[in-house]
Amino acid sequence: MILDSIGDWTRKYYSENITPELDGKEVTLFGWVQEIRDLGGIRFIILQDREGTIQVTIPRKKVSPEVLSKSEALQKRYSIGVKGIIKKTIMTPRGVEVIPNQIKILGGATAQLPIDITGNTPANIDVRLDSRALDLCIEPNTTIFKIQHHALEAIRSFLFERGFLEVHTPRIIASASEGGSALFNVDYFGRKAFLAQSPQLYKEQLVMSLEKVFEVGPFFRAEESHTRRHLSEFVSIDIEQAFADAKVVMHLLEQLMQHTCKIVKETCAKELATLNHEIVVPNLPFKRLTYDEVLNDLKEEGITLPWGDDIPTQAFRTLGRIHPYFYYITEWPTESKVFYIKPRTDKPEICEGFDLMWGWMELVSGGTRIAKKELLVKRLRENGLNQESFKYHLEAFDYGMPPHAGWAIGLERLTMMLTGRKNIREVTLYPRDRFRLTP
Amino acid sequence: MILDSIGDWTRKYYSENITPELDGKEVTLFGWVQEIRDLGGIRFIILQDREGTIQVTIPRKKVSPEVLSKSEALQKRYSIGVKGIIKKTIMTPRGVEVIPNQIKILGGATAQLPIDITGNTPANIDVRLDSRALDLCIEPNTTIFKIQHHALEAIRSFLFERGFLEVHTPRIIASASEGGSALFNVDYFGRKAFLAQSPQLYKEQLVMSLEKVFEVGPFFRAEESHTRRHLSEFVSIDIEQAFADAKVVMHLLEQLMQHTCKIVKETCAKELATLNHEIVVPNLPFKRLTYDEVLNDLKEEGITLPWGDDIPTQAFRTLGRIHPYFYYITEWPTESKVFYIKPRTDKPEICEGFDLMWGWMELVSGGTRIAKKELLVKRLRENGLNQESFKYHLEAFDYGMPPHAGWAIGLERLTMMLTGRKNIREVTLYPRDRFRLTP
Repeated sequence: MILDSIGDWTRKYYSENITPELDGKEVTLFGWVQEIRDLGGIRFIILQDREGTIQVTIPRKKVSPEVLSKSEALQKRYSIGVKGIIKKTIMTPRGVEVIPNQIKILGGATAQLPIDITGNTPANIDVRLDSRALDLCIEPNTTIFKIQHHALEAIRSFLFERGFLEVHTPRIIASASEGGSALFNVDYFGRKAFLAQSPQLYKEQLVMSLEKVFEVGPFFRAEESHTRRHLSEFVSIDIEQAFADAKVVMHLLEQLMQHTCKIVKETCAKELATLNHEIVVPNLPFKRLTYDEVLNDLKEEGITLPWGDDIPTQAFRTLGRIHPYFYYITEWPTESKVFYIKPRTDKPEICEGFDLMWGWMELVSGGTRIAKKELLVKRLRENGLNQESFKYHLEAFDYGMPPHAGWAIGLERLTMMLTGRKNIREVTLYPRDRFRLTP
Repeated sequence: MILDSIGDWTRKYYSENITPELDGKEVTLFGWVQEIRDLGGIRFIILQDREGTIQVTIPRKKVSPEVLSKSEALQKRYSIGVKGIIKKTIMTPRGVEVIPNQIKILGGATAQLPIDITGNTPANIDVRLDSRALDLCIEPNTTIFKIQHHALEAIRSFLFERGFLEVHTPRIIASASEGGSALFNVDYFGRKAFLAQSPQLYKEQLVMSLEKVFEVGPFFRAEESHTRRHLSEFVSIDIEQAFADAKVVMHLLEQLMQHTCKIVKETCAKELATLNHEIVVPNLPFKRLTYDEVLNDLKEEGITLPWGDDIPTQAFRTLGRIHPYFYYITEWPTESKVFYIKPRTDKPEICEGFDLMWGWMELVSGGTRIAKKELLVKRLRENGLNQESFKYHLEAFDYGMPPHAGWAIGLERLTMMLTGRKNIREVTLYPRDRFRLTP
């Protein structure tokens, strides 16, 4: 098939911008053939672009032979350019159609498509991921990532305005620094290295100079679990702030969550309607439950947990039924949190770590960090971690580590919250998990 | 040492905000002890924070015994809080000082610091990287990353305004997809996988749904070369656009470069002064040299290159002397560019790839991509690449691949340009290269 070239054609309007008010205007459109209907005397082509669809109507007798033959060569998912006249009509849902003066065929497609691009017959997630590039053309799927984009933009501008500097810390690290969940191994020019599971140690070091930092980017966790709430590669939104404690960053975080819900609700009204999902902008401050209160709530539901344990998923599901929206869990047992979380001075068995929950889902985890080297060394030892592999990090504490605190948001979980999706693989362009690496 | 707690102290002003006009006002400052001078009757403490320094003056006879004893306990790099009165004075360069009513010691530091934090006796880059957390406290070093932050903010808002959606593509990939430079191996749950060297294939697939996408993030290149212009882990700013060709994205790129230079010059005047670097906002359009013109320029300088070869570093250095600022190199031989760059229809030995140069330095590389599956398969074969490992990517071309084009900016090189630094390791928080992995 000979393809046309774009030439000097440029696009001013997406499909959604074509309204009856523009009746009689000439317009240039780019997009893909979503559907073709032929009523003998008239051909209808539904042109799809990123922002929606528009009907291109071809009255056989009225259009040029060239337009007609082009229109007859079209198949689903061909990429096309259409130059034509906008016409007000009562025959289409949106009250408007385009009568083409010229059609360009810019790209072809195979006759057989593995999934229904109108989305009318939904496929299961694995079939969808097998043809992800096509799957993402289905409007609700595109929509998820538009919302994610706007959420991230809202978060960045919020942090910018408050003087946070965006940083880029290493992903290839020399030693299994953080302990906790498993790390992926990398062959680094013949040396054994690892993929970072968070920017934690680096962002802590950076508060010594940049004071308020954040990073948004991929991190890695070689989780053995088969849960579908986790990814082995995920995007984390991390902040760290000097001269601050948990109280300060919790206040910042709840403001950020309110701001993000508000902006997304305003900016993405169309997208949220497509997903049939409503965002309720939360009131502040968020509910704060202590770990002990959570244990009591669970006991009343018949789930008894020994003090000091982390809270298992099933218990979180129950908790989510009691507390369906945003709430903090505070005053965690020190032993249940990672080594760098500061134990309370007055009550060392309790720490200054916190989680921000959304129903059953842990959205954010953070806390005051240990700023004193001796205490950090002690906690490393208590966690059975090798002090040698923290040598470089511990040195930084000799150079003026200030009191500091921070948190980390999982972008995918945030997106689940904002889009109402239940499967984390749906809100990830190309999910990486135990089940699937390819493509 | 017993540390004070921050308590309810909050900071409204950084050191730079303390001006003579605020004479008599009370202020709360947080920061680090940069220098201590004792003139018997008076102690001077230079307090450093992210935005600069301010003199804290302690007249022994006039301050409380508690303030005096605190001030005597201080050492370089202690983190402190100071509550005091702003006083206009002719005795300091900035015409202002702070007389403390209260001093809090918030964090300690070792007596021996490996590098001079005033920056008066500069250390070499390897010594600096050995104590990077401290090295970054030296003002010019902090400054580099403030400029990088503002540059990236300028780039994002520029792309947002033009309808680009930010995406997150995988870093752990199943097959050595791109060919070209070497990839790092990852052990993925017992399977062999690789670290992505670019989002190229994914961002091309995404133009089928999101049309205009960009990504900013770390990518990986297991370069054997010992050059100090390359990093094995670097940050790339990638865009890809549907229904566009090289012409379109080159126009976008030069506008972006002009915009970024303009914003950084305006926003970071103080930082650029610290670095003693001037940014010249370029005029548009940028100079466009064809590959053949470059070969002629080089020939006149006594460097003769066979047509079709890539241009070696040494030749680029010469070229940079002739063309010291921004210029494009176009009409590259198809064989000298990567497989997915589109050969010209009229002249297949020439391709639609381009580079944006800044003197001797390649800043950006891009071009029109091949959108036709058969041609892509042909180019893969000609490049000796295994079609099987591109199976999934090639499938996407069956589902409606539109004409598209894009480019990739190296953030570190962009930062070198904007800050006037010559060593890429200086403009990277924790450089990853052949020479250094730790920390």
